[in-house]
Amino acid sequence: METCDLAIRGGTLVTATDQFSADIGIRDGRIVQIAESVSASEEIDASGLLVLPGGIDAHVHLDQPTSDGTVMADDFASGTHSAAAGGNTTVLPFAMQVKGSSLRQCVEDYHRKAEGNCFTDVSFHLVISDPTPQVLGQELPALVRDGYTSFKVFMTYDDLVLNDAELLEVFDVARREQALVMVHAEGHDAIRYMTHKLETEGKTAPYYHAEAHAQIAEREATHRAISHAQLTDVPVVIVHVSGRDPMEQIQWARKRGMKVFAETCPQYIALTRDDLKGLNMDFEGAKYVCSPPPRDHDSQAAIWDGLRDGTFDLFSSDHCPFHFEAPDNTGKNNDRARTSFKWVPNGIPGVETRLPILFSEGVSKGRISIERFVALTSTNPARLYGLHPQKGTLSVGADADITLWDPELQATIRQDSLNHGSDYTPYEGMQITGWPVRTILRGQTVAKDGKPTTAVASGRHLKRGTSVIGYA
Amino acid sequence: METCDLAIRGGTLVTATDQFSADIGIRDGRIVQIAESVSASEEIDASGLLVLPGGIDAHVHLDQPTSDGTVMADDFASGTHSAAAGGNTTVLPFAMQVKGSSLRQCVEDYHRKAEGNCFTDVSFHLVISDPTPQVLGQELPALVRDGYTSFKVFMTYDDLVLNDAELLEVFDVARREQALVMVHAEGHDAIRYMTHKLETEGKTAPYYHAEAHAQIAEREATHRAISHAQLTDVPVVIVHVSGRDPMEQIQWARKRGMKVFAETCPQYIALTRDDLKGLNMDFEGAKYVCSPPPRDHDSQAAIWDGLRDGTFDLFSSDHCPFHFEAPDNTGKNNDRARTSFKWVPNGIPGVETRLPILFSEGVSKGRISIERFVALTSTNPARLYGLHPQKGTLSVGADADITLWDPELQATIRQDSLNHGSDYTPYEGMQITGWPVRTILRGQTVAKDGKPTTAVASGRHLKRGTSVIGYA
Amino acid sequence: METCDLAIRGGTLVTATDQFSADIGIRDGRIVQIAESVSASEEIDASGLLVLPGGIDAHVHLDQPTSDGTVMADDFASGTHSAAAGGNTTVLPFAMQVKGSSLRQCVEDYHRKAEGNCFTDVSFHLVISDPTPQVLGQELPALVRDGYTSFKVFMTYDDLVLNDAELLEVFDVARREQALVMVHAEGHDAIRYMTHKLETEGKTAPYYHAEAHAQIAEREATHRAISHAQLTDVPVVIVHVSGRDPMEQIQWARKRGMKVFAETCPQYIALTRDDLKGLNMDFEGAKYVCSPPPRDHDSQAAIWDGLRDGTFDLFSSDHCPFHFEAPDNTGKNNDRARTSFKWVPNGIPGVETRLPILFSEGVSKGRISIERFVALTSTNPARLYGLHPQKGTLSVGADADITLWDPELQATIRQDSLNHGSDYTPYEGMQITGWPVRTILRGQTVAKDGKPTTAVASGRHLKRGTSVIGYA
Amino acid sequence: METCDLAIRGGTLVTATDQFSADIGIRDGRIVQIAESVSASEEIDASGLLVLPGGIDAHVHLDQPTSDGTVMADDFASGTHSAAAGGNTTVLPFAMQVKGSSLRQCVEDYHRKAEGNCFTDVSFHLVISDPTPQVLGQELPALVRDGYTSFKVFMTYDDLVLNDAELLEVFDVARREQALVMVHAEGHDAIRYMTHKLETEGKTAPYYHAEAHAQIAEREATHRAISHAQLTDVPVVIVHVSGRDPMEQIQWARKRGMKVFAETCPQYIALTRDDLKGLNMDFEGAKYVCSPPPRDHDSQAAIWDGLRDGTFDLFSSDHCPFHFEAPDNTGKNNDRARTSFKWVPNGIPGVETRLPILFSEGVSKGRISIERFVALTSTNPARLYGLHPQKGTLSVGADADITLWDPELQATIRQDSLNHGSDYTPYEGMQITGWPVRTILRGQTVAKDGKPTTAVASGRHLKRGTSVIGYA
Repeated sequence: METCDLAIRGGTLVTATDQFSADIGIRDGRIVQIAESVSASEEIDASGLLVLPGGIDAHVHLDQPTSDGTVMADDFASGTHSAAAGGNTTVLPFAMQVKGSSLRQCVEDYHRKAEGNCFTDVSFHLVISDPTPQVLGQELPALVRDGYTSFKVFMTYDDLVLNDAELLEVFDVARREQALVMVHAEGHDAIRYMTHKLETEGKTAPYYHAEAHAQIAEREATHRAISHAQLTDVPVVIVHVSGRDPMEQIQWARKRGMKVFAETCPQYIALTRDDLKGLNMDFEGAKYVCSPPPRDHDSQAAIWDGLRDGTFDLFSSDHCPFHFEAPDNTGKNNDRARTSFKWVPNGIPGVETRLPILFSEGVSKGRISIERFVALTSTNPARLYGLHPQKGTLSVGADADITLWDPELQATIRQDSLNHGSDYTPYEGMQITGWPVRTILRGQTVAKDGKPTTAVASGRHLKRGTSVIGYA
Repeated sequence: METCDLAIRGGTLVTATDQFSADIGIRDGRIVQIAESVSASEEIDASGLLVLPGGIDAHVHLDQPTSDGTVMADDFASGTHSAAAGGNTTVLPFAMQVKGSSLRQCVEDYHRKAEGNCFTDVSFHLVISDPTPQVLGQELPALVRDGYTSFKVFMTYDDLVLNDAELLEVFDVARREQALVMVHAEGHDAIRYMTHKLETEGKTAPYYHAEAHAQIAEREATHRAISHAQLTDVPVVIVHVSGRDPMEQIQWARKRGMKVFAETCPQYIALTRDDLKGLNMDFEGAKYVCSPPPRDHDSQAAIWDGLRDGTFDLFSSDHCPFHFEAPDNTGKNNDRARTSFKWVPNGIPGVETRLPILFSEGVSKGRISIERFVALTSTNPARLYGLHPQKGTLSVGADADITLWDPELQATIRQDSLNHGSDYTPYEGMQITGWPVRTILRGQTVAKDGKPTTAVASGRHLKRGTSVIGYA
Repeated sequence: METCDLAIRGGTLVTATDQFSADIGIRDGRIVQIAESVSASEEIDASGLLVLPGGIDAHVHLDQPTSDGTVMADDFASGTHSAAAGGNTTVLPFAMQVKGSSLRQCVEDYHRKAEGNCFTDVSFHLVISDPTPQVLGQELPALVRDGYTSFKVFMTYDDLVLNDAELLEVFDVARREQALVMVHAEGHDAIRYMTHKLETEGKTAPYYHAEAHAQIAEREATHRAISHAQLTDVPVVIVHVSGRDPMEQIQWARKRGMKVFAETCPQYIALTRDDLKGLNMDFEGAKYVCSPPPRDHDSQAAIWDGLRDGTFDLFSSDHCPFHFEAPDNTGKNNDRARTSFKWVPNGIPGVETRLPILFSEGVSKGRISIERFVALTSTNPARLYGLHPQKGTLSVGADADITLWDPELQATIRQDSLNHGSDYTPYEGMQITGWPVRTILRGQTVAKDGKPTTAVASGRHLKRGTSVIGYA
Repeated sequence: METCDLAIRGGTLVTATDQFSADIGIRDGRIVQIAESVSASEEIDASGLLVLPGGIDAHVHLDQPTSDGTVMADDFASGTHSAAAGGNTTVLPFAMQVKGSSLRQCVEDYHRKAEGNCFTDVSFHLVISDPTPQVLGQELPALVRDGYTSFKVFMTYDDLVLNDAELLEVFDVARREQALVMVHAEGHDAIRYMTHKLETEGKTAPYYHAEAHAQIAEREATHRAISHAQLTDVPVVIVHVSGRDPMEQIQWARKRGMKVFAETCPQYIALTRDDLKGLNMDFEGAKYVCSPPPRDHDSQAAIWDGLRDGTFDLFSSDHCPFHFEAPDNTGKNNDRARTSFKWVPNGIPGVETRLPILFSEGVSKGRISIERFVALTSTNPARLYGLHPQKGTLSVGADADITLWDPELQATIRQDSLNHGSDYTPYEGMQITGWPVRTILRGQTVAKDGKPTTAVASGRHLKRGTSVIGYA
């Protein structure tokens, strides 16, 4: 057998179903050997460490322009640095169509931003905000064939919301092209109704974001999205599910044989709506504003059940980073936002802390097994989004995307130690047991001990295939 | 004790809970005595007959103008004649707002049409099709206080559909004014999507109406309406529920403590979608086009379960009569309708056959008790819509609205024998056991043996109170 | 019309569906007139009062011998005095077969005890504890035909428990004879297992009765009873349902079309397991020991939902009175009981406080309507157990069993004021709004203002017909 | 790196989550390398084949004495030959306690029968039929510590049934010793009731076995077993689940967080109760008699849903082989069996056809993925029963138990080709796509092309650890 470039020795390999001691041999960026003993010119000692498939964060926002003048705190360089430092080797950001513009053009714009700036591999989901006949009839089918096999639609946000007629048309194209639709499921009019009501009552503090974005509105939109999917016979992914009520709809749909996949995020296990209160209902709460908002302890318990019992396929960050303080009203703490919660930019940073939070709260505390952790954060995203078996597993022939994990490492989340572009983390001070100590992308170490280790942006864009699971 | 004007003697009285032999004494149009023996100047022999509270049909359309030039086959005279002949003493038609016009004005228009032409008592539900600030802020609250305590909204039909923002606003007013909202729950965009798809495939026969109006679309809209009601904390009535799927949503909501009421209709127990096929998919099927459409035998079975177990509070006709053949394209069989199912006027006649169909299929066949029959067709409508205890029961002090029923009478439904304005009945040839033989409105006989008996239109309009049940 | 013996004037009549002002005319113990105005030689002024059908307590234990030497605190005289004072006109006690003895003989024994001693009407349920071929093949069918149309079986208690084979045989006979089976559903072995475990841990205080009789054991037995009923195709009544878990089984069964009826009792809305703790886990807790035991606040909430939504058909007392202090170890506080909860006599008094507790906690506090109160406590028991329309309603021809109720009367439950034989009430000190002020049995006043008014025991034994509802 | 004894080259490896091309290197019976290219002194060409972890059949009966004189058709030699030919490398048979005898003694007896006669690895489950204090207090704990970490209890069969008190005691020991309890869940008395009823009606043909063993009885026992497990806080495995009703109980329990595992078998997807009819209700039907019996097509559909959605963890054979024709009444067709279905020996052969049937009906027909096939038939049994990671996966360090599978091979199941001891197969004539072509036990080929290849019985008994999943 040919020699390897790199051997990772002495660790405990973990996949979505297995745990065993072995060495890994790597050549030309791919795993070529898993064996009792592998030697190579370069060797990494993984004794005492877990050897995991690199994390895949299937839901991140990077360098997206906004319609209100706020500025996203991460470009592709800082965002993927942060991702790598947090144990990820692939992220799936969005190429977001701006209304009135060509989708293909938008995709090319995002490629320009990303090219030469990525420290992990990346692959774009599309966002359809303007489903013109041109987009649905020509651009989208062509893009799916080019490997952009998933796209997201929004049921809320003034500049993104699609109405039911549009949703149905997009779903229809998805089925025809065998693409996967991701849905941001919150009822736009319900949120506007609540917002208006709260503002009328003088309730404008950031906290009221959590009341305006009622769980009822999320549940209703989830049911609606599922119904549209059923009518058009297409699989859907309900992203960033926040609590018990939308989960119930998803379980209901599956029980009836529908193909509905579900994602949840760190904010729904580590935060609650009370965090939005800041100190005494002050503006500090804006740091936690995201949509859907964190719910309550009952919903946290439901989410854990869902992570355990398979309701959730994916655990992603929904990384959507803003500065809190920033000049020229470009951060969360801007003039308009202080007049009403409805102007607070929606989104929080999280690509770097996603894996540690789930590991610590889930695996270390005995709520989920380590195999399930791997499934939720790497294997399932790869399988669902058409990256498997190249990504998401430790198997011969796969890309050598590997994260070495110290399950005993004690750490505290501190803004000071993170690599993202935001000036705060919503998880400040959180105690963590277990942290990634080295991230290897196609055989090359890209981060170590929480810091990027290279200035060479070797991340590639990945063309994806049809979803194995979605269209099984 | 003062003497009675009229005694009904020797019958078996049935209420929503009781069955017993007694005479009824009536004076000045009200029941003043229920006793072992009552005598009066005028006596009706009810031996061998059931003595029921007069039927209340809580869902009928009379003399409504349409936007497409078709003409409703019943005005108030023919419609209430038909109702009376079918055992009803009260009907609740709609005063339908035309977009762009004042709601109050519309109500007055309908009163003008009704006045002096009614052979049963009537009371209008409002239809809100244009919820302007003027309507919601002033007209509607004033009308509720004037006794129009219920209004209907539509989630489909181009000229009636309200979007979610409008629905929420209307619901909000309903809660404030303690009025009851009735919802036609079908998803407009889903129906349009299906319609477009079917037309594209060349499927334009009347039968495809049943595919276009998919049960999924009804279920989704039901869930949505329930969610809006939950958010605004208001009771709702889901009208003309057609099958298992929307029923499931209603049961789910109730189990969570929400105030959701439900109505079903004869077409959902006596017809199926196959009736829309006519003979070999021809245009005869148009005779059965209504919305939601009849479903299948499984849904019929579900409806029966729901009639028995309390899922349904109301059994109404949704009488919406058209001519099949009529000049100048004013009937179902018009030029445009023949080009596509989507132009077939939606609605079928049924006010006269509602009670016989439920009695025969339900009571005579042993599926429901006679007490439940009374509850569904008279007592519950009265209680839910603010007419109780004046209407809907046999109790001292109540209006003497009484139907004498021959439970053994065998009949066949024939267009020839009916009194409605349509030129056909969708139930032609149906065998019936049990038929109303005399209808008494406030002490006066208004129909006998299936025929109106008076040219004096003594029906009154009823101001209604707040729903006893809705706002208990 | 003939004159009446008695008129009840000026009250508000309430039935299971109606509420209206009228007078009632009575002759020969039966209602012969309900009218705007009735006059008679004797008149009772019911102005400001509710006029209800007399309460029917479908679950009381009177003068039953016990196997352990304890003595029931009520014989038929004191028990029916207590019942009448609490607004009841009919009670259904048990004629309990002692193992090894003839069922017919037992019935005759109970008749001897009851005869001439009853101040309400009574009708016996049978208890089958020894289903020999003689009992099942001959005695039981004959007794059913004689009007004993319901019998109870026990799934626990050493001297009463039937095993599954015996239960199935009894159910089989019930179907054949069209009788109704009542089931005490608690799993005997599960309770013994828990009891043994608790005793081993030194947990012998009365409180541990509530842990030994776990809700799981009640739920399991409920499912088992339902399954046996399904296999043998027979309707069953699950009596004294205590909480959320067994309720769920009942709802599940009904949803599948099974005929399962359900009863709950005052102890499950007014007490919790914490009452069994007494003061600091002392023996005072024994006063609250009954089976199943009261549960927690969550189960109380579930019970209220079930009273409202129709899960429960019946609200009975399960009156099973013991002395707390009594000589010769005949009360709850006996030598053996102090050594372990398992020797504490099971049962609490409640026939007199049943109606006030449900009225006050239910109707006065707005949880249930007054019509539902009447249904649960009078109409439904009559209908289910074959006494309707003679009992359980205010209709012409029915027995003049009437309770006059003052809905505003404020009272506090005090042992001093009660008429039962026990030396305590578990509801001591409970504040009540609404109390029965006069109880009329077949036209004769038997209690007034909480006290029996007659020494003439005019109560009769009632032969019952087949259950209208059970075998509809 | 040291050289390998054996290389399996060019195949497609499949695990419970992955599928990839690689070679496997084996040394001393263990997998030491998985790599792009492995060479060894001996090489097997697996081109075009799937390389699977060897099948683990977690539910087989071998060489068990019966109480009625019938003789099991397989001893350990023939049974494990048959298993190996069908692609299995490990089977878990039962060491069944005979009432009145020592459990330890029984285990030793079975070891004696097995020793030197096994062509696959084996590991015994215990069967507790006589839970004496000696057994529960001493023998069982000692045996669990010796690696017999699972035991089965029966809720039916005269000579095996435990009553509820006994079940609870056994469950209690299981929790204490961290062992897994397997439950045969059918209600004994319900079956006896049905049997008696059917016999009384003259219904004695084998078909009536399916009516006597009603699904209601299985559902009830499943609920009961789950309740006992909940009360004693112990995980349980419900074995051989046959249909929709018991599945519903299992799903219900899991939704409430209980640890309930479930197994189903080939007979519940490939047979129906109609097979028991034979030809015109004749005795041929006896060939299909097993307990629980196959159900109907609706239940088959439910089982497939459960195999897909994770309701089922295990797919085992419940191999329980009898001769149909055999001398001296030792087969199914014996004198007594012909008098009534209740005497027909319960059980059918299936260890050899389990994997092909699931592969063909499941994987080849697109109902389940190949990864799920591996999980259900190998990985999950290993994980649940304490054999992982030594067994049930393809990972470095695991035993080299490997099955080479030709996914395209077309075959017809014929008794002539099988290796079991029975004289018939219930699957005669079934068309199969996909068959195991080589079975490798710890590096040694034990079967090839459907035939055993060695006379050396190298199978070992496996001590097992605590269930990873059961006691996670």
